[in-house]
Amino acid sequence: MAGTDSSKKIVLGPAPVVVLCEPQLGENIGTAIRAMANFGLWELRLVNPREGWPNEKAASASTKAAHVLEQVQVFDTVEAAIADLSLVYATTARKRDMFKPVIGPDVAGNQMFAHIGGGEKAGLLFGRERWGLNNDEVVLCDAIVTLPVEAAFASLNIAQAVLVLAYEWRRASRQGEALPFEADAGVVASKDDIVRMFDHLETSLDKAGFFTVPEKRPSMVHNLRTMLTRANFNEQEVRTFRGIISALERKHLR
Amino acid sequence: MAGTDSSKKIVLGPAPVVVLCEPQLGENIGTAIRAMANFGLWELRLVNPREGWPNEKAASASTKAAHVLEQVQVFDTVEAAIADLSLVYATTARKRDMFKPVIGPDVAGNQMFAHIGGGEKAGLLFGRERWGLNNDEVVLCDAIVTLPVEAAFASLNIAQAVLVLAYEWRRASRQGEALPFEADAGVVASKDDIVRMFDHLETSLDKAGFFTVPEKRPSMVHNLRTMLTRANFNEQEVRTFRGIISALERKHLR
Repeated sequence: MAGTDSSKKIVLGPAPVVVLCEPQLGENIGTAIRAMANFGLWELRLVNPREGWPNEKAASASTKAAHVLEQVQVFDTVEAAIADLSLVYATTARKRDMFKPVIGPDVAGNQMFAHIGGGEKAGLLFGRERWGLNNDEVVLCDAIVTLPVEAAFASLNIAQAVLVLAYEWRRASRQGEALPFEADAGVVASKDDIVRMFDHLETSLDKAGFFTVPEKRPSMVHNLRTMLTRANFNEQEVRTFRGIISALERKHLR
Repeated sequence: MAGTDSSKKIVLGPAPVVVLCEPQLGENIGTAIRAMANFGLWELRLVNPREGWPNEKAASASTKAAHVLEQVQVFDTVEAAIADLSLVYATTARKRDMFKPVIGPDVAGNQMFAHIGGGEKAGLLFGRERWGLNNDEVVLCDAIVTLPVEAAFASLNIAQAVLVLAYEWRRASRQGEALPFEADAGVVASKDDIVRMFDHLETSLDKAGFFTVPEKRPSMVHNLRTMLTRANFNEQEVRTFRGIISALERKHLR
């Protein structure tokens, strides 16, 4: 979906930190960066990226998200990468044998929003492409986040997992705010406009002999009004529709 | 996130149809297929895929989602691809100059769920990688769906847009249902277990001379009980914690 508005400035507001544990491929780091940027996340930490850092493939896959790419930090251990955070969720698609709360991305988004709103730092920990997180990494986290995937097809790549969590953060942090653009509904038509449009239509239909069985006229009018009301015409559309009636009527009279 | 459970069978339940309009790259079709499969969508229709169909790159990128790949249908026009659907949403990141409702993915998920629950068919229309949907394609749809992206970084690839919409469908269709796995909380500890654990701890601390200022003991006990209550120990953890106290106590007595 193209649509980036380059006149808009990127604001680095409070948002969760993303921690990728031993990511294997630079390209995945780059697409994760892009997913973060889409939904307003900007702080990425890498624990021992296999291909080292900086990484050209990550840079090229992150297309234009320089504000995220340029401040990536690299750590030797998960402990160091999450040291300054006070709430961390481990993302995993596998059940672990530990007494740890399990939540969905929507709950995670809401809880991170409440936590960050209180001036605290929160983070999301993602595992390796091939086998995810080890138990000793999950243990460090406050809860497990898992996605409501189809059990028979549960494998998501890292960037997609980051995308869903980033999306839920965005959703939680923007409750009640507008989408990037809103519907243009035009000027609402008054009921008077609508009723006069109905009268116009029904008068024309009378003249055209549309109502062949007089006793059925009331119920047919009822149906017509119902279906046209549902269309919720605005002022301009009422004029357009009346124009249609007039045009057809002229044709009929010709 | 690894975690596909190959013992689970894929059930092709009622779900929205995905329509990709003139997709340019096979790989993007494949990753879109994977995103669909993750969240239980399975019916994909292509309008004039640029590289033709079948497409090897699509097949390889769709890893194991054969149940989606094998029933992809190809159409010459958007009109033909959506002919049997009664609710279609156009996904776009750009405002259009038309009187069309604009909704977010969550509202789209809920509305599709209601529609499909009524026995009707619904679909999601996605545009070309490079410039999205044309206005004459958007006009055919009931509403516009747009994602709550950062305006300065609004560009998502098709598979990611499909993923977010598929995720919201899944969320809407599974309200109140469990995640793929649930927390193992162990056997809840009774308050009696907890109070006896507190008594054990406080008696041990008394013996160890922990409460140096007697008049401060009540408030310190209050604090200890508060912080340990928050941990919400289960039965096994109560036993573990009492084991810790005993072990430290023995060490102290040595």
